[in-house]
Amino acid sequence: MRKDKVSSAVIRRLPRYYRHLNDLYLAGVERISSNALGRSMGLTASQIRQDLSCFGEFGQQGYGYNVENLRGEISDILGMKRGHTAVLLGAGNLGRALLENFHFERSGVTLTGAFDVAPPLVGQEFAGVSIHHVDQLEDYLSRHPAMIGVLTVPHSAANRLAGRLVACGVKGIWNFTNIELDISAPGVVVENVHFADSLLALSYMISEAP
Amino acid sequence: MRKDKVSSAVIRRLPRYYRHLNDLYLAGVERISSNALGRSMGLTASQIRQDLSCFGEFGQQGYGYNVENLRGEISDILGMKRGHTAVLLGAGNLGRALLENFHFERSGVTLTGAFDVAPPLVGQEFAGVSIHHVDQLEDYLSRHPAMIGVLTVPHSAANRLAGRLVACGVKGIWNFTNIELDISAPGVVVENVHFADSLLALSYMISEAP
Repeated sequence: MRKDKVSSAVIRRLPRYYRHLNDLYLAGVERISSNALGRSMGLTASQIRQDLSCFGEFGQQGYGYNVENLRGEISDILGMKRGHTAVLLGAGNLGRALLENFHFERSGVTLTGAFDVAPPLVGQEFAGVSIHHVDQLEDYLSRHPAMIGVLTVPHSAANRLAGRLVACGVKGIWNFTNIELDISAPGVVVENVHFADSLLALSYMISEAP
Repeated sequence: MRKDKVSSAVIRRLPRYYRHLNDLYLAGVERISSNALGRSMGLTASQIRQDLSCFGEFGQQGYGYNVENLRGEISDILGMKRGHTAVLLGAGNLGRALLENFHFERSGVTLTGAFDVAPPLVGQEFAGVSIHHVDQLEDYLSRHPAMIGVLTVPHSAANRLAGRLVACGVKGIWNFTNIELDISAPGVVVENVHFADSLLALSYMISEAP
């Protein structure tokens, strides 16, 4: 019983629900009330019930939520068990930070390969992922299709490479380039990580803080 | 004529307004209608008028917005001209990516110093910023007060270091550690960059795309 259109605010909260429930699960907590879950997340119990009602019926009056079950349901909703694969374009500082320190698999994503143009990088391996020359992109993706392309390249290359990824069947771009991509292909989604927007929001909040 | 309480959705859009207006300004555009600005941002004209009305009266009927003026106004609202200073804690891959590739000054922030515990890093300089030992943090901040602390450290050190920053007068934490910080000091704000939440939101959107 999923609603047709889930608001983007709810979508933004889903990963937080997953993270909190996963922490509770790893801490051995078996069940939790919507009140307690709300307190730990800075939300009201009714907000939580309303958010989750977008996806079905969870929890029981007087019992609360079974942590392991709800964690599993949210993991399903988020598509974590779909076996999404990804490639990363741009093995500079940020790309290598993601390769070496970010746990893609904890989000249900397998990073199969990375690409760059710099001769000293091509052929190297970071955290078990090989760096190929970007000229090999189409050939590689024809043999190892990927759903997700991680863009950690300079601005100037972003749109061109995004277009090549989409032409190869990539359905989601995780965009770290701080520009808005110009993608018109139907069924392709872009998730932006705009560092500058985030820092500016912090600057605003500091100026407004009591 | 600023409203008392601006919604977080509007706050999130302000940096995007700034970015779009800055691009227009750099491209030599002098004025723009709310319709045209909306189209380029994927918002309606009335949404834009409503957002900006939170902060005052901008634009003129039949003329639209003066790009340079509106960019300046939004820059003021965002606190970009307040001369915020920042320190960065954790000069691993991600910290170095920010030091070397992210333009703090374009957000009106001056990064004065960085800190780590690793002997090979301490004493080095990246993009003109020196890495100090984290034992020097309190001494450094007493001489060079900072408003913002950038946290690019391992999970295990995050809360402890955030506490030390706040004790030294830092008012905003830019948190890349993927955990929610436990900060109760009044007037201190936290802006999270949760990579995993972002990737999970992308995974969800891919699963839901038509």
